[in-house]
Amino acid sequence: MGDNEVKKISMAVIKRLPRYHRYLAELLRRDITRISSAELSRLMGLTASQIRQDLNNFGGFGQQGYGYNVSDLYYAINRILGLNTSYNMIIVGAGNLGQALANNTDFSKRGFILKGLFDINPKLIGLKIRDVEIMDIDVMEEFIYTEEIDIGVICTGRESAQETADRLVKAGIKGIWNFAPEDIKVPEDVALENVHLSDSLLTLSYIMNEKKLARKFS
Amino acid sequence: MGDNEVKKISMAVIKRLPRYHRYLAELLRRDITRISSAELSRLMGLTASQIRQDLNNFGGFGQQGYGYNVSDLYYAINRILGLNTSYNMIIVGAGNLGQALANNTDFSKRGFILKGLFDINPKLIGLKIRDVEIMDIDVMEEFIYTEEIDIGVICTGRESAQETADRLVKAGIKGIWNFAPEDIKVPEDVALENVHLSDSLLTLSYIMNEKKLARKFS
Repeated sequence: MGDNEVKKISMAVIKRLPRYHRYLAELLRRDITRISSAELSRLMGLTASQIRQDLNNFGGFGQQGYGYNVSDLYYAINRILGLNTSYNMIIVGAGNLGQALANNTDFSKRGFILKGLFDINPKLIGLKIRDVEIMDIDVMEEFIYTEEIDIGVICTGRESAQETADRLVKAGIKGIWNFAPEDIKVPEDVALENVHLSDSLLTLSYIMNEKKLARKFS
Repeated sequence: MGDNEVKKISMAVIKRLPRYHRYLAELLRRDITRISSAELSRLMGLTASQIRQDLNNFGGFGQQGYGYNVSDLYYAINRILGLNTSYNMIIVGAGNLGQALANNTDFSKRGFILKGLFDINPKLIGLKIRDVEIMDIDVMEEFIYTEEIDIGVICTGRESAQETADRLVKAGIKGIWNFAPEDIKVPEDVALENVHLSDSLLTLSYIMNEKKLARKFS
């Protein structure tokens, strides 16, 4: 593997890759083999120059007068996103949110395999969500070890989030997907992605406010 | 209101504002009245220059040798985010995800008041989540009108997302928070915030993959 493959790409570009991946998957499903940056631009609501700039980060997939080969581009992004492999995943906190995530079949389609759910609530322990058992959090570390779990999803309340993260990291987890409304801390070599739902709602109210002002002053 | 107040701020800055808002709220709770950009930087894991640059977008809240007045800054960001008012909200789709959102008390604390849930499933209709009733989607438009609903949250499946959005828009909704794994389309004057959970998971696997390569090549 050459140096090019580990070069640093800006987080803004990374954050757009899953969206490209999603649109390209849809094109593949529709048996579309190539697409111009102009067409892709219309489809995705980005400018064609933005698309060319983004995809240039990953080498020359586009060809003048031909456009992009959909399948080549899809599998290249697939590999960049680390999706050419599968991941074993557990969910900690089996309340409504944990159960909603466990019920989402999109994740397993992309290679994120849910192996177990954990909770402290005796009423939940032993129940199954789509064939995956809710277990006592006391056996979590052993489960992570024996089932070779890669990713821990934190769906606990705010107050248990950091403690849960610490336990997951200590047990060898390499990626944490955090839904608790708390900025948790993890060591440098552990990947962390926070989903702050409130932040997203606040972005919505900002845009609403901006549009309201625009109506008022236009 | 002057021109300054409607000036365009980059989406990257906007996306960071909720996080500033969250940290400032915590400082206020702890009765901290002022903070330097250096301290705020340490707390939030951003560089001090990034913080100064971000906050400069909103005028001169910082003072040389004094730092930021926490309360002034908090309320300014509060207003920019449109949080100096409250919003009436409904959730469409009362499955696990819809119920998880309905159970989240963080939203109402920030002024997003859940007025109703809607579903097509007769087994769910009539149930209550934290005193809010799940109603038949047939009465949704009337409810939006009489209860003056501002925001519609889409927690339906992929296949009903666009139709739900169209109904919400036609009924006068001005903001849509979409959790369905589908890029829906709305008219220019309607605010839309998509939460693509899969995209977030793909970002996590990208970071995991990058850290794995870093370990391999270091």
